[in-house]
Amino acid sequence: MQRLLLTLRYDGTRYHGWQVQKNAVTVQQTLQDAVERVTGVRSGITGCSRTDAGVHADMFCCTTDTESPLRGDDMISALNANLPRDIAVYDCREVPNTFHPRYSAVRKRYLYRIWNDRARNPFWENHAVHITRPLDADMLNQAAAGFVGRHDFVSFCAAGSSVEDTVRNVLHCGVAREGGLVTFSVEADGFLYNMVRIMAGTLLEIAAGKRPCDSIPEIIAARSRDAAGATAPAKGLILSRVYYNDVK
Amino acid sequence: MQRLLLTLRYDGTRYHGWQVQKNAVTVQQTLQDAVERVTGVRSGITGCSRTDAGVHADMFCCTTDTESPLRGDDMISALNANLPRDIAVYDCREVPNTFHPRYSAVRKRYLYRIWNDRARNPFWENHAVHITRPLDADMLNQAAAGFVGRHDFVSFCAAGSSVEDTVRNVLHCGVAREGGLVTFSVEADGFLYNMVRIMAGTLLEIAAGKRPCDSIPEIIAARSRDAAGATAPAKGLILSRVYYNDVK
Repeated sequence: MQRLLLTLRYDGTRYHGWQVQKNAVTVQQTLQDAVERVTGVRSGITGCSRTDAGVHADMFCCTTDTESPLRGDDMISALNANLPRDIAVYDCREVPNTFHPRYSAVRKRYLYRIWNDRARNPFWENHAVHITRPLDADMLNQAAAGFVGRHDFVSFCAAGSSVEDTVRNVLHCGVAREGGLVTFSVEADGFLYNMVRIMAGTLLEIAAGKRPCDSIPEIIAARSRDAAGATAPAKGLILSRVYYNDVK
Repeated sequence: MQRLLLTLRYDGTRYHGWQVQKNAVTVQQTLQDAVERVTGVRSGITGCSRTDAGVHADMFCCTTDTESPLRGDDMISALNANLPRDIAVYDCREVPNTFHPRYSAVRKRYLYRIWNDRARNPFWENHAVHITRPLDADMLNQAAAGFVGRHDFVSFCAAGSSVEDTVRNVLHCGVAREGGLVTFSVEADGFLYNMVRIMAGTLLEIAAGKRPCDSIPEIIAARSRDAAGATAPAKGLILSRVYYNDVK
């Protein structure tokens, strides 16, 4: 039995998130079906995170244990031939059986994208939220700096999450504009449920003048979901990178 | 009667190009329908070019003559409320009745995009061609320099075109890589039918080693469509910018 680490991209628009669900099409289910068609054996797949419905991934890592002799490019080609056009595997490598795509990850990067112009943009329709009032990206970048550091991020965790340790280390956080596209980027050693979407929603409330620019530290200190802003829509979110120490 | 210059973006995937056709959905038809719903009057729309089926536009300019009092942002909002999500108007301004979106244009820029990686990319599925063998963007950039200048581009004009003067001035032409995306960019005072797609198809044959890197000048000199390469697929092409002297 060999553990394989698969790296993929997906457009999450058509999917009910990563995780297998009853009566809903998910990315995990779709990938499992492709692995079964390629290897002839039904085997479980473990993902690096559980993305929500409508969330995208430019780099998503997962493992599967297989007896199949297919490796590298041969496995990639075989899987892609059995996957729909909105999911594509682009890396496949052998990892030790102690490797876990979620627990072995030392850092992840998410992007949250906003199309900021009076008119909507057909090319960003499913991949960014549309905000018409002009955003001050420099001010938001200053505000976002308040997230950096090791903090208890329970204020930015969806209510109902069962995670016990809500302390995370945010290593980088920033907002930048490129034409009409405003991108919020955040790297951390781990993320709580809906954390980036609540961070983005809070920044959008700062942008709207509903909260002062320097309000992030006190929202963190409040240790209450009620202190933070609304959860921003899923379609603006994309898992951009997963870092491991040993591989890649 | 006031002539309005409308600027729009569209994802051409679902459309049979710009130009109105019988029994096919086109961008011009869709926009005409929206103008009629907004103004109550059916009026013609003149475009800056005739994009083919599947070709996209980040900036497409067209005019319509109207008695409607709607102007600027009000007209933009009204039109967008009546357009499907893959077409959006983002600018509207008054122009003199002598202004013509095609004949008044002094320059246009097209991009031709190639996703160059072994695995396909779900995010570029309908907006780039997928080439798996590694492309040497620097070499292609050198090759593309051969297009620059005022030349008879009849070798790069689709057979059957009725245009008489096939001399065009290519002002800029280049190829650049950004990660897996290779972009061919070309600016000229005008373009012949399928010109950019034939240029791109010829560059792809150079990339494949079927033609030498310095072959563009002799293909131009041959003055024959047969001398150039195949027409590259429509979905990689996007009209990126239209320049006018008076407005914008």
